[in-house]
Amino acid sequence: MVRDFLFTFAVSKELRMIKSEIVNQRLQDLREVMRREHLSAFIFPSTDPHQSEYVADYWKGREFISGFNGSAGTAVVTLNSAALWTDSRYFLAAEEQLKGTEYRLMKLKIEGTPTIAEWIGSECGAGAEVGIDGWCSSANDVKTLIGDLRKQGGITLRTNFDPLKLIWLNRPAIPENPVEIHPLEYAGERTRDKIGCIRQALREKHADGMLMTALDDIAWTLNLRGSDVHCNPVFVSYLILSSKDVTLYINKVKLSPEVEAYLKAEGVGVAPYEEISKGLKDYFEYNILLDPDEVNYALYEGVRRQEGVRSAIEIVEEGSPVKRMKTVKNEREIAGFRSAMLKDGIAMVKFLYWLSQYSGDSGSSGNLGFSSLTELLVSEKLERLRAEQPLYRGLSFDTIAGYQAHGAIVHYETTSETDIPLRPEGFLLLDSGAQYLDGTTDITRTIPLGPLTDEQKRVYTLVLKGHIQIELCKFPSGASGTQLDILAREALWREGLNYLHGTGHGVGAYLSAHEGPHQIRMEWKPAPLVAGMTVTDEPGIYLTGKFGVRIENTLLVTPYKETEFGQFLQFEPLTLCPIDKSPIIADMLLPEELSWLNAYHQRVFDTLSPHLSPSESAWLRTACAPIA
Amino acid sequence: MVRDFLFTFAVSKELRMIKSEIVNQRLQDLREVMRREHLSAFIFPSTDPHQSEYVADYWKGREFISGFNGSAGTAVVTLNSAALWTDSRYFLAAEEQLKGTEYRLMKLKIEGTPTIAEWIGSECGAGAEVGIDGWCSSANDVKTLIGDLRKQGGITLRTNFDPLKLIWLNRPAIPENPVEIHPLEYAGERTRDKIGCIRQALREKHADGMLMTALDDIAWTLNLRGSDVHCNPVFVSYLILSSKDVTLYINKVKLSPEVEAYLKAEGVGVAPYEEISKGLKDYFEYNILLDPDEVNYALYEGVRRQEGVRSAIEIVEEGSPVKRMKTVKNEREIAGFRSAMLKDGIAMVKFLYWLSQYSGDSGSSGNLGFSSLTELLVSEKLERLRAEQPLYRGLSFDTIAGYQAHGAIVHYETTSETDIPLRPEGFLLLDSGAQYLDGTTDITRTIPLGPLTDEQKRVYTLVLKGHIQIELCKFPSGASGTQLDILAREALWREGLNYLHGTGHGVGAYLSAHEGPHQIRMEWKPAPLVAGMTVTDEPGIYLTGKFGVRIENTLLVTPYKETEFGQFLQFEPLTLCPIDKSPIIADMLLPEELSWLNAYHQRVFDTLSPHLSPSESAWLRTACAPIA
Repeated sequence: MVRDFLFTFAVSKELRMIKSEIVNQRLQDLREVMRREHLSAFIFPSTDPHQSEYVADYWKGREFISGFNGSAGTAVVTLNSAALWTDSRYFLAAEEQLKGTEYRLMKLKIEGTPTIAEWIGSECGAGAEVGIDGWCSSANDVKTLIGDLRKQGGITLRTNFDPLKLIWLNRPAIPENPVEIHPLEYAGERTRDKIGCIRQALREKHADGMLMTALDDIAWTLNLRGSDVHCNPVFVSYLILSSKDVTLYINKVKLSPEVEAYLKAEGVGVAPYEEISKGLKDYFEYNILLDPDEVNYALYEGVRRQEGVRSAIEIVEEGSPVKRMKTVKNEREIAGFRSAMLKDGIAMVKFLYWLSQYSGDSGSSGNLGFSSLTELLVSEKLERLRAEQPLYRGLSFDTIAGYQAHGAIVHYETTSETDIPLRPEGFLLLDSGAQYLDGTTDITRTIPLGPLTDEQKRVYTLVLKGHIQIELCKFPSGASGTQLDILAREALWREGLNYLHGTGHGVGAYLSAHEGPHQIRMEWKPAPLVAGMTVTDEPGIYLTGKFGVRIENTLLVTPYKETEFGQFLQFEPLTLCPIDKSPIIADMLLPEELSWLNAYHQRVFDTLSPHLSPSESAWLRTACAPIA
Repeated sequence: MVRDFLFTFAVSKELRMIKSEIVNQRLQDLREVMRREHLSAFIFPSTDPHQSEYVADYWKGREFISGFNGSAGTAVVTLNSAALWTDSRYFLAAEEQLKGTEYRLMKLKIEGTPTIAEWIGSECGAGAEVGIDGWCSSANDVKTLIGDLRKQGGITLRTNFDPLKLIWLNRPAIPENPVEIHPLEYAGERTRDKIGCIRQALREKHADGMLMTALDDIAWTLNLRGSDVHCNPVFVSYLILSSKDVTLYINKVKLSPEVEAYLKAEGVGVAPYEEISKGLKDYFEYNILLDPDEVNYALYEGVRRQEGVRSAIEIVEEGSPVKRMKTVKNEREIAGFRSAMLKDGIAMVKFLYWLSQYSGDSGSSGNLGFSSLTELLVSEKLERLRAEQPLYRGLSFDTIAGYQAHGAIVHYETTSETDIPLRPEGFLLLDSGAQYLDGTTDITRTIPLGPLTDEQKRVYTLVLKGHIQIELCKFPSGASGTQLDILAREALWREGLNYLHGTGHGVGAYLSAHEGPHQIRMEWKPAPLVAGMTVTDEPGIYLTGKFGVRIENTLLVTPYKETEFGQFLQFEPLTLCPIDKSPIIADMLLPEELSWLNAYHQRVFDTLSPHLSPSESAWLRTACAPIA
């Protein structure tokens, strides 16, 4: 799944009118509170106290106050005006969703769009006081904002007030779903051992302890999983880990006696979620590692203020050492990935076989017509096939099934409102994945449903070339994904084509489908690729109003060879699923690209066919037959 | 020329003994001064007040105090010990040059090597005071050092004292070579217009003025050239440019009446070089742009201290806008480059033709034996051939002529001490360039002198593949060289080979052979490649004790095409010189690589042959004949 692009919902006209009235009422409620508090503006970003990419409903405050539900966007409300900043992915959706409200849409990276600070400066004037909830922004984001506002005639920022607590009457509760133990069989390393490794890493950074706020980092460290966030098996909590003890800050209602006993056995204490600030005070005699890009401003400032007061404390501002430990999979996790990928491949092939029965008017099994299928129906069919697999725990993200022009909307989500029937022509772009107890999957295939245009074949082949060049590449230890990125793009760039999302992201082991800090992308991401990491390979091209193509495997970084120039690494595809050959213009592939495809298909067939019915297997044999 | 690697000198045993005695005497002189000033250590870096890559002799203080003359290295002297930090390029040379002195060699990036601050901490103990000349380090370098020393038990740094002024008795003078006007015919843009553009850029950064310290930036801005630094047509000076005036700080003895009149006409005032600190004070009512990576600490601190005192002044800490203006060549400069490259190509072909007469025992013109040639003799021959070309002004760097194993020493410089005769086998790596009034050149060819091993052919072909992939690539506007770098390396990485220098650097227009900030390299260099920039393409492989291969052209960035995905760019080779075909294993080249080579050779032949003698032209025809 493309890392940058999430989902928008379409809304019917009637619903939109009701929604806009609700939003305007909420703005009035907010302004009443703002006036009482002498605040000239309030800023609503889109994350939670854990800097999560996906947030629980409790933290969807920006959506509550604006009605805009895209994954990225910041709403700002003054006493007389309101505006929402979002990026090009969401211009259309935001315009639609903000209709009838007071909100002015601010298009990021478009010439003439003011920054949030500039706009507040012009709306509120010098000397104003502005608010933001210090819990729902990272320390670095708030620090930057403070500096930017100061330049607007000395506007100040208040961070210790959350108006939503007063005006959001039916605010959803913070989730209280039960936490479960992630078996060692899949986790591969005991919690106490992980804690030992983290302590060692902290010692090397001259820190006595750390505050962990990222939900997937906590789940990984404790070998626990939850279901507080859609598609992400995490649970809302904080963790303080020091050289002497470990404390999980969590709503205790989530912990069964079994989990409580397990935590005790692993040496992990438990305290209420709300007491994190209080808990941090116990560590004020120590050097504590805080990642200012991750820890929220409220907690960061709570510690920082003590720096001046108590001479013993010093904040070690560094990236969390847990990130890298988590992204480098151990042997059990890798075995789990292979098992999950096998199951996911079986489900995908069963799905593709099923879809092939609907081969249009001229198809050999043409008795099943496409008109009975829609984007939503194929998504549901695929989900059902995955759900039949052992250890299935749900989707790892909402399926993107985009037919033709819908495939060109990178952040498209199929809803009953946008759903369209398939026809026996063109491309269906299908980006999907699942959570299994033994691993997380993320795969995209672009499926031809019938005749294709020359442009479609050409674009498909160019994207495939890019995909294969990443699969083929070898690189020295220490190289980052930024250095590799061009291999996926150069064939496209030569034709004046490009895609603006990343080429790849890490994938968690029964955790988030998006895992960092390593990525393959045009922007600089210094985290090196390390043997044992997973990373997706998903170049694409999106021609607005026409179609989209994306081809994605999840890869494993493995050792290649060691020479006098050091250790070299390579990729191994974990994903097992044929890549449709019919759109390929074979002349455009290099011999090495053709060989890779044929070898990959051979492996897919050999691995999956024992688990398929004879008819599915026969279909797969043809799908995996080599191109000469 | 490879950006990272410079030159070392070998020294005879006798000379070394004398040298080491001299160095030890200087250490005693230094310590006497240090004791008087209560300094526990003194640090000698390798640059000058202008952060020059090449420095005039006056600023070779680190070489004076240590005897080590590599381009990169820092000497630190305490009252009882001395150490010198340098990197792997110089381990051998430094070991040789430091023999018999007190210096301990500190190998950078080798496990167990202490940092300079750590070593000072262990040698001098807490609370010590240490010195460095604040003029000869950038503001950022000193700020980092201050922080590192503070962590060593609160060691403090004094920056306003230069002991060399007391102990370096026959210190060379700061050069006083005459400055000359660089004709508009070659510069392409009037000084007053450049000043207007810089002022506009400063306004956009909310700065009223800037301090320019980089010598090539000053030369470019004023359309003046000098000869104060070996191979670099620059002159020692500072420039202050504000919204109201422009002042050149320079030793007036360098200015002829003509140059003085020219400066006056362009609105540039003149003040003595030594008065830069005083001059800066006149700008204390303004916001001044200072690039802390470029401006030396002494001048930076002089301004910074005023920030608190006078409320009106604010330092705008940003990269200099001149860098980008200078690196994007105008039409006249590009025309100049083409002219310079034509001349340089003619000289190179005359040289290669001359060298081909020495084709060894079995050669067809075998009456000229290789035994009469050495690395130094071929360097001199090439220099003479270049000197015959119109507008020649000297070399742009010292020629690297490395035969066989010498070619594997990336920073090899041929001296009478290291010189070896050529033999009719293996590779001669020849990296050279010249300064012409209309442009600067930089080219590397690896020349087979006779039979090659399979390994030599294979490595040569892989390096050539990397070179051609850069020549072929297309990329969107905004892409940086870091994103492109892998194209030059991937063929090598697949074989477990690598080179640790950059792939390419900018080249000045009758200025420095190394120009930034854009580069093509593994490390992150965010400066995008822009149409009109020059950049070298010089992958290589160095097999210690065996041979080295590097193939380098200087390229021009040009527009490629504009599509719905934006503007795309490409490269055009400016260098005109055949790339030897005899080592190529043709099967290893892709069809597109073969086509590029054949087309390039056709262009080289068509462009150069009219300027050659019949025998040279006949040789070139064969050298440029297509590979089928």
